Amino acid sequence: MITKNRGGINMEFSQYLPIWNKLTREQQERVAGAIEFRKVSQGELIHSSSASCLGLVLVRAGQLRAYLLSEDGREITVGRLFAYDVSLLSASCVMPDLQFQIMIEAEKDTEFWSIPACLFRNLVDESLAVSNYARNLLSGNFTELMWLMEQIMWKSMDKRLAAFLLQEQQVEGSSVLNMTHERIANHMGTAREVVTRMLRYFRGEGMVELTRGSITILLPDKLRELAGE
Amino acid sequence: MITKNRGGINMEFSQYLPIWNKLTREQQERVAGAIEFRKVSQGELIHSSSASCLGLVLVRAGQLRAYLLSEDGREITVGRLFAYDVSLLSASCVMPDLQFQIMIEAEKDTEFWSIPACLFRNLVDESLAVSNYARNLLSGNFTELMWLMEQIMWKSMDKRLAAFLLQEQQVEGSSVLNMTHERIANHMGTAREVVTRMLRYFRGEGMVELTRGSITILLPDKLRELAGE
Repeated sequence: MITKNRGGINMEFSQYLPIWNKLTREQQERVAGAIEFRKVSQGELIHSSSASCLGLVLVRAGQLRAYLLSEDGREITVGRLFAYDVSLLSASCVMPDLQFQIMIEAEKDTEFWSIPACLFRNLVDESLAVSNYARNLLSGNFTELMWLMEQIMWKSMDKRLAAFLLQEQQVEGSSVLNMTHERIANHMGTAREVVTRMLRYFRGEGMVELTRGSITILLPDKLRELAGE
Repeated sequence: MITKNRGGINMEFSQYLPIWNKLTREQQERVAGAIEFRKVSQGELIHSSSASCLGLVLVRAGQLRAYLLSEDGREITVGRLFAYDVSLLSASCVMPDLQFQIMIEAEKDTEFWSIPACLFRNLVDESLAVSNYARNLLSGNFTELMWLMEQIMWKSMDKRLAAFLLQEQQVEGSSVLNMTHERIANHMGTAREVVTRMLRYFRGEGMVELTRGSITILLPDKLRELAGE
């Protein structure tokens, strides 16, 4: 579903764009005239390397996941977006020097706005506030990617899995995680068998309980210790 | 060796800073008054996580290497800088949202200028041209890191090693690479034993010749085929 909000009929999105007040009146009108609102269902792909460029994404509600996809279908999560998050990852087309292929899917039913790539590019070129904002977004993404790289390079898979389960517990606000081993493997960039083997080891240590399609965290402190947090 | 060039006595660096002509006269004077010139020897560390922030680096001549270092001393190269390269990797302090720890060492005897972090931060905040330039530098770094991540995640070590040897051949302009297996392992973020084992396999296939401290590329086409290039 795409709704264009022209002429300031619905300006709710402005609360989700931190630099709204730093735009000129004329720039605000251009954004309001071009911004698109979408509702997507869990599992829906909203951005792929082959699809047209989505532009800047502002999440109203829900949960998005950005990931890399290999030629043979393997995945690794490189970022997640929640309500009030703004992301450039869907706007590689906006940045002439930003060239990579990323997929973004809805992890939950999600509502978001997108500012078209060409408009955002113009704003970045003409406004110091927007340029600095885009640079800060990018700095954040870069830092996260560097962090992920360090995790992958230096941390063993059991520590990474423990950290992932704790992160999920926080995201879901629940110790019961409804997630398949396959899904976890796709987040972590590893094989399902590796995840299954480690989860069984965690179960053996009393840290988790496993049932079909769900994992229950029993000893978060022990997981935290393992994760080195 | 640190030389301050005040009052435009030596303005050679301006040729190495692509946005020089987009600065105001006053900004140019501030840069000229604060920029530092350094000569460092091969192997010298010019930036480390614990050292003070170096600022924006402009390479005049030589070769620098940016890498991550694990707590237990493992390394992986995340970027290399040659003459005319400008890098923000040494300026994480410049970007409030850019937080990671990176090491930079001279791979060869190197001459470079650095624009102090606080000055560069001011320029970024006040000049649209500098902000856009910094954003583009960062986009480039981000793209490279994403590429490296994909290599690490999806490519087997033999393909990565083949690609690395070909890259070194290009950098050195020679088929004889004077490099230890340890050094290659540090570039690639793996163990020396892994590199040694693969190089022996490459030798068995006639692709390289190995002598103490050097590797000679004999069949670049076969390496290219293996690397999937």
